[in-house]
Amino acid sequence: LNLLLGLRMLKALQSEYTVGKDEFKAAEDRLRNDLIDVQLQLLEDPDFSVIVLLSGMDFPGRSAAAKRLMSWMDPRHVGLYAHFRVREEELSHPRMWRFWRALPPKGKLGLFLNSWYDGPVSRYLMGSLSEAKYRAQLKQVMRFERMLTAEGILFLKFFFYVPKNESIENLKDIKKDKITAWKMSDDDIRIAKHLLKKYDRTVGVLEDVLSETSTDDAPWIPLRSTDARYRDMTVSQALVDRMRSRMATEQPVSPSRHADKSGRDEALDILKTFDLDQRLEPAEYKTRLKKYQRRISELTVGGKFEKRGLVVVFEGNDAAGKGGCIKRLVAALDPRMISLVPIAGPSDEERAQPYLWRFWRHVPERGRIVIFDRSWYGRVLVERVEEFCSEADWQRAYQEICDFEDELTGHGLIVVKFWLAIDRDEQLRRFKAREETAYKHYKITEEDWRNREKWDDYRRAVCDMIHRTGTANAPWTLIAANDKRCARVSVLDTVAKRLEAEL
Amino acid sequence: LNLLLGLRMLKALQSEYTVGKDEFKAAEDRLRNDLIDVQLQLLEDPDFSVIVLLSGMDFPGRSAAAKRLMSWMDPRHVGLYAHFRVREEELSHPRMWRFWRALPPKGKLGLFLNSWYDGPVSRYLMGSLSEAKYRAQLKQVMRFERMLTAEGILFLKFFFYVPKNESIENLKDIKKDKITAWKMSDDDIRIAKHLLKKYDRTVGVLEDVLSETSTDDAPWIPLRSTDARYRDMTVSQALVDRMRSRMATEQPVSPSRHADKSGRDEALDILKTFDLDQRLEPAEYKTRLKKYQRRISELTVGGKFEKRGLVVVFEGNDAAGKGGCIKRLVAALDPRMISLVPIAGPSDEERAQPYLWRFWRHVPERGRIVIFDRSWYGRVLVERVEEFCSEADWQRAYQEICDFEDELTGHGLIVVKFWLAIDRDEQLRRFKAREETAYKHYKITEEDWRNREKWDDYRRAVCDMIHRTGTANAPWTLIAANDKRCARVSVLDTVAKRLEAEL
Repeated sequence: LNLLLGLRMLKALQSEYTVGKDEFKAAEDRLRNDLIDVQLQLLEDPDFSVIVLLSGMDFPGRSAAAKRLMSWMDPRHVGLYAHFRVREEELSHPRMWRFWRALPPKGKLGLFLNSWYDGPVSRYLMGSLSEAKYRAQLKQVMRFERMLTAEGILFLKFFFYVPKNESIENLKDIKKDKITAWKMSDDDIRIAKHLLKKYDRTVGVLEDVLSETSTDDAPWIPLRSTDARYRDMTVSQALVDRMRSRMATEQPVSPSRHADKSGRDEALDILKTFDLDQRLEPAEYKTRLKKYQRRISELTVGGKFEKRGLVVVFEGNDAAGKGGCIKRLVAALDPRMISLVPIAGPSDEERAQPYLWRFWRHVPERGRIVIFDRSWYGRVLVERVEEFCSEADWQRAYQEICDFEDELTGHGLIVVKFWLAIDRDEQLRRFKAREETAYKHYKITEEDWRNREKWDDYRRAVCDMIHRTGTANAPWTLIAANDKRCARVSVLDTVAKRLEAEL
Repeated sequence: LNLLLGLRMLKALQSEYTVGKDEFKAAEDRLRNDLIDVQLQLLEDPDFSVIVLLSGMDFPGRSAAAKRLMSWMDPRHVGLYAHFRVREEELSHPRMWRFWRALPPKGKLGLFLNSWYDGPVSRYLMGSLSEAKYRAQLKQVMRFERMLTAEGILFLKFFFYVPKNESIENLKDIKKDKITAWKMSDDDIRIAKHLLKKYDRTVGVLEDVLSETSTDDAPWIPLRSTDARYRDMTVSQALVDRMRSRMATEQPVSPSRHADKSGRDEALDILKTFDLDQRLEPAEYKTRLKKYQRRISELTVGGKFEKRGLVVVFEGNDAAGKGGCIKRLVAALDPRMISLVPIAGPSDEERAQPYLWRFWRHVPERGRIVIFDRSWYGRVLVERVEEFCSEADWQRAYQEICDFEDELTGHGLIVVKFWLAIDRDEQLRRFKAREETAYKHYKITEEDWRNREKWDDYRRAVCDMIHRTGTANAPWTLIAANDKRCARVSVLDTVAKRLEAEL
């Protein structure tokens, strides 16, 4: 079974690969045993998950292969993502949201009959996506796959090729059969139509996609799928082989530390030049608070905002007053539009998924508002400083976070990020005050005192974070928070200004 | 603050309850402290959750009260369910699904601006729900609340009353204001219109609902809400009081065992008279398997099935062959329509919710198929026998499960339940075979041997289960499974016949 065929040579995939009934019968038992065997090994020691893309021009073949895999494996531990039609709920979330929802947890397999490739490719073929946007979306897709492989997910991306004469037959059959036609996704139908009309151009586009998005970790496996036995043997064998080789490989737990100079330079210490002691008098505070709250309230109501949405991220030193700012912001908003998400340790369902999964599940629909009290930035703050993750993990997080926020803003969501900064003395005063006030006592723990010891490490992490994740669409706003009134007013002012600018 | 007013005397709720600015100011600080205090106590020791319904005729008042509660409490631990419009996704699931999704986990509060009352009441008022169906839905609602209180959820159900003259004013204001009108749910608008047209009749219907659905554990708290300060003080005080009193009460962990005679009677031992040794020859097996698979395949495709959906439950003795039956069933189905849900121990997110929550999250949409490998019946089988829950818990589960399945079938889902029965000798043979076959070794654990010791306890539990949860719409099918071929064919035959009968 020769898989080493050039990705730009689909048409060279020969029809000589046919498997006889007897050969198939002989292989079937062994393959089934092997599949169950690797599946069980993975279940028993669930340290990664497997994503299998069944893509390509052979639409009935994709379904048939999925069906065979389900029958050969233990179907209870295989998820199938098959998407005939984009739903209302999906349209109102960023594009990748639907795939995040479908990711298999560790220990399980996910078969994708439709994937993140179908949308861009079919829209490009239809002419409804410009060359530039198409390239950009393919890049987004590649970063998505790179992130997932870095998270330990094993990829098998199959591309089923059908030669021209058989393809046309095949497609006519689908169109004739109401049942099959209905089961193809809108994207599938678009590609199918293009194949009928412009076979060579379409194959050319597909070959481009394959060669551009084939990586060492997530290579495309092209195969001619006209022979169903050959197709299913090839797919199963590749799955077994890749899973076995992955299980035999020791995963690097803590890759070699590579130099990280950003933010180490004093010149890049943004916090240093920042005046934390800006103050505001009570009377002025009241006036401005009311003014900004009214402004925000006006801006978040009505048609324009309904087409957008808002994500507000609060990060800051311990005791910097995040909770107080959130309360004043919430007071300005219609409570029916908002969700508040306090981020603590992950649940066990979250631990079985890539890092960003637990934030994706809270990404708002159009017209809604989500406020995060701490956020995905935990990766490059507490997890970095306390060494809860490897350096490789937090280093790659900067780019992954930018990609994530790109997807949010690309969907029209307005992303506002705050770092609430206080100085060491002010923090000490607040810690002591909390210990002395019964009512605030719950707010101070042993951990807070321990974190305080690592003030400089955190400061460095914060500077790196601001430096590396402050983007044009999702900029950081530093808030001088030694004075609570000043901090709250600044936060509201910033939100109001961003809404004004964006709407 | 007198809450003890007759539920049929809304109009007697007097307007003399007004709170002055000073009185309010004095109370506010204390109430805020108390609210935060109970909230934190609950967070630290999260053994229940709180549901607050903000219902009644005062639509702007409901929102305003929610907003005040959010600002007085720590909003990060309060969820707000506010539903302006029923979504595509919700329509394609059973009616209560949307509320199950919104339940607060232990330690948190859930505010409901719309609730399970709004739908039935408004449709009844509109004349689109018959008296009989309306009564049935109210009963369903009461069983839902009874189940939730049994699960430890604390209820506060507020009903905001507005007298006729003020009500009409109030509603005109809402209708004038595009923003407010938009934010009312469809059900709210229906009730509001009826209040405008037929004030007395509508109040009469509402009084009926209140008095019929007020229970000791989840009483209605009616109040006249025209004075906003009075309204918010009353709501907050009641919330603090009920939470404090709940925290001060020792919850009965293991209530006194009450007699349970059902199924103990030998006459009711259904399994006893059931011939487990029905056999089928290989040739006959193949023919019938193919035949039924084809039949099921035909029946689950097309318009009729798209409007329905299928839930198949597999329970049975250990080693009874559930997995094999599931595989043969899956082989008959379009893999894109199905989800397979193997039930093991709950995740920590599931543990923080009522028992049935983890099954509700897998309830299929219209036109889809979900197959459960073990199910909610674990409560009355393994949890009963192994004493993982109290007798009170599994005793109430019979009714709760019937209610749950009623909701599924009421929505048009076809529910098929199998008990796969083998005898002790056959089980021993299979256990031994599994231990000897490398390939099947994973299937046998210490636990299986321990469970085997309790054969008679399980047998009693199974008989009780079949006796008490076999209903006309969701009947049990006993499968003689000593012969695997026979079992598989029976399962497929049953599914095919049920589909034929239902479609």
